Amino acid sequence: MTTVDRDTVSLGEFEFECGESVDDLRIAYESYGEFTGDNAVLVCHALTGSQHVADVDRSAWSRDDAGVGEADEAEAEGDTTAQTAGQARAWWNDVVGPGKAIDTSEYYVVCANVPGSCYGSSGPSSDGPDGEPWGTDFPPVTVGDWTRAQRRLLDALGVGRLHAVVGGSVGGMNALDWARRYPDDVTRLVVVAAAARLDPQCLALDAVARRAITTDPDWNGGDYYGKSEPENGLALARQLGHVMYLSKSSMAQKFGRRSAGRDAHREAFPSDPAASFFPYRDVESYLDYNADNFVDRFDANSYLYLTRAMDDFDLREGYDSDADALAAFAGEALLLSFTADWHFTVEQSESLAEAFRSSDVPVAHHVVDSDHGHDAFLVEPENVGPPVADFLEDGVEGRAITDTAVESDGGTETEFAPVHSSLFST
Amino acid sequence: MTTVDRDTVSLGEFEFECGESVDDLRIAYESYGEFTGDNAVLVCHALTGSQHVADVDRSAWSRDDAGVGEADEAEAEGDTTAQTAGQARAWWNDVVGPGKAIDTSEYYVVCANVPGSCYGSSGPSSDGPDGEPWGTDFPPVTVGDWTRAQRRLLDALGVGRLHAVVGGSVGGMNALDWARRYPDDVTRLVVVAAAARLDPQCLALDAVARRAITTDPDWNGGDYYGKSEPENGLALARQLGHVMYLSKSSMAQKFGRRSAGRDAHREAFPSDPAASFFPYRDVESYLDYNADNFVDRFDANSYLYLTRAMDDFDLREGYDSDADALAAFAGEALLLSFTADWHFTVEQSESLAEAFRSSDVPVAHHVVDSDHGHDAFLVEPENVGPPVADFLEDGVEGRAITDTAVESDGGTETEFAPVHSSLFST
Repeated sequence: MTTVDRDTVSLGEFEFECGESVDDLRIAYESYGEFTGDNAVLVCHALTGSQHVADVDRSAWSRDDAGVGEADEAEAEGDTTAQTAGQARAWWNDVVGPGKAIDTSEYYVVCANVPGSCYGSSGPSSDGPDGEPWGTDFPPVTVGDWTRAQRRLLDALGVGRLHAVVGGSVGGMNALDWARRYPDDVTRLVVVAAAARLDPQCLALDAVARRAITTDPDWNGGDYYGKSEPENGLALARQLGHVMYLSKSSMAQKFGRRSAGRDAHREAFPSDPAASFFPYRDVESYLDYNADNFVDRFDANSYLYLTRAMDDFDLREGYDSDADALAAFAGEALLLSFTADWHFTVEQSESLAEAFRSSDVPVAHHVVDSDHGHDAFLVEPENVGPPVADFLEDGVEGRAITDTAVESDGGTETEFAPVHSSLFST
Repeated sequence: MTTVDRDTVSLGEFEFECGESVDDLRIAYESYGEFTGDNAVLVCHALTGSQHVADVDRSAWSRDDAGVGEADEAEAEGDTTAQTAGQARAWWNDVVGPGKAIDTSEYYVVCANVPGSCYGSSGPSSDGPDGEPWGTDFPPVTVGDWTRAQRRLLDALGVGRLHAVVGGSVGGMNALDWARRYPDDVTRLVVVAAAARLDPQCLALDAVARRAITTDPDWNGGDYYGKSEPENGLALARQLGHVMYLSKSSMAQKFGRRSAGRDAHREAFPSDPAASFFPYRDVESYLDYNADNFVDRFDANSYLYLTRAMDDFDLREGYDSDADALAAFAGEALLLSFTADWHFTVEQSESLAEAFRSSDVPVAHHVVDSDHGHDAFLVEPENVGPPVADFLEDGVEGRAITDTAVESDGGTETEFAPVHSSLFST
């Protein structure tokens, strides 16, 4: 039986990187397992994820049993009722738990909801000094603020040096920030489906997503709590994100050009008479269904805040290069990337691997051949689990780990075999 | 001096594929050059393009002189004042004109604004029977309706068999429909950056774009003429489209992660105080600027109508296969595709080439190595012009034409070398 703690701690006054402060930063977290002094693993969640990373106190379930709509709603996410233990889906339950890749019988695993989010930590939807939700008066947050808040939380939990920091997607950026900011605090770093910075295509799509929210009249400058919420804008933002998490090939396999069934709820969005001549497609129905679920569980202002933090992150900021930013890191690093991921590409991970190599940090870049797009890090635990487990145990020499570097004399000569033929095939 | 005609013709009653009719379908067109009986070339415009394909009556200009913002606004488009001769940019002026690839000294070139659009042909923004704009009472339109209307227009102009039909993007689908629907009317078919059907990823993004329009309260069920127009929704739709027309590498080259200059108009969309801590990026400024121009020149209902026509097009509809749909076509075909185009991929063009080959239609699939994404067909006239010119002159044996097929015995063995390493590199 793994011990589980679910709690929210008050960290007192906290100054954000922007210079603004809050009197009492609250951080909601979950921890699993027993801390033995050297076995702490911090897991960093993705954009709209939560602290609810594992369902250790209910029996294991299979992702395949869950149905497509549900399984996908779990992607990169936590769930609505993260604070209601055992009620809902944990976002990395196939990877974290007793006997799993991140083994809670062996490690003390901590996951904290980042500041700016909406699952119990301080953010736009939490109460400000006047007892009303902060709204957009909440200070802007950065990935660096997430890391600093996590450091404070771990201090409060009595954890000094971490055995590992593990993060996926923007959670991987969060992990990279740990290596840069607290290079002596982390022995092993696992960066899954992430990058040193977002590329301009993703910056553009995130910007369009934010505009979808802020042009929804119900957004009302961010002041919508207790009123009509900007559901249309948030739904559109979510649908855009969703397309970014999938790949051309996964969408072709999952939906093709099929029409949705007759009982599909086409009326989720306004339409006009001419639309009814054309099919309502599976892919539309899927996006509509998932967006509908999403607006029930996520806060529109948090979506603005967290995408801005992601867009803003740049590993080399304040340094001459990525390698320079990582130079003080004394641990080892595992990078995982997925061939059909166009949100965070294999090439970006390889560039990051080269930065680690130039700084003489032991690193392995393990490329997974996959059709699943960015989602792969959540829906392919069979490919993610083994390298992560072996790395936590044995470092870059772990048995299940492959590396794109053929030889390391000098650390510069590498061979990289991008398997992109499936990236955009149909 | 090339003769230019700009006119709008009344084609009388027209029954759309949906079964609904209008009493008088009006089609706005431009034609360039003299018809000699066998030299007619129909050019089919892209989604938001117009009949204004060439500026033959003003001196040539260089695209490079035009500045990034303007050059891009011309992409896949016509221009606002298509009906005001010589006032504004023609969308394929580098390819069509006297002495150019589609030589108006040699060919009689016709381009018609498709029904459902907003540049003078009948559509949602044109006047209905009651003298008021149709709005969403205008019948739904399909690519087949475009083709049938073009056939009627050409009849009115005295043109029977066409020397060639040339189309890019959804205009290429329009061209394919010509080969399927009127297989004896076309000698040479040029399909540029198109496909037999859209893939589910693009269907999804188009659906999100339509939702951006229909959730804008100013859309008002399509009844907004003379009132406040759904500018925010149309701007978002356009920004999404814009991202689809570019590639990761072209965006990296063009914008990187740079901040926009201080005089960039950040206030194009609503924002919140926290946003000001973060840079307003070049890529955002570019999208905002172009969206702003776009809403001035395009009709939101037309955007709904035309994207649905594009999404709906499927070459094999009513046939057993793409090859079957093309079996009656007795001419030759040239397919052009661009390596970094993720809207209409090289793979989709190759699949189309195989369909032509199985039907024993002489075909060449000419792949252009390019970083420009879908836009390449507009911004790389130096790569598009030569194969098109030679094909119009000499068919698939034209000198500047390459083909993906290595040998044609049996027409099945082909070698395809996708050059996708640049597709998603950063």
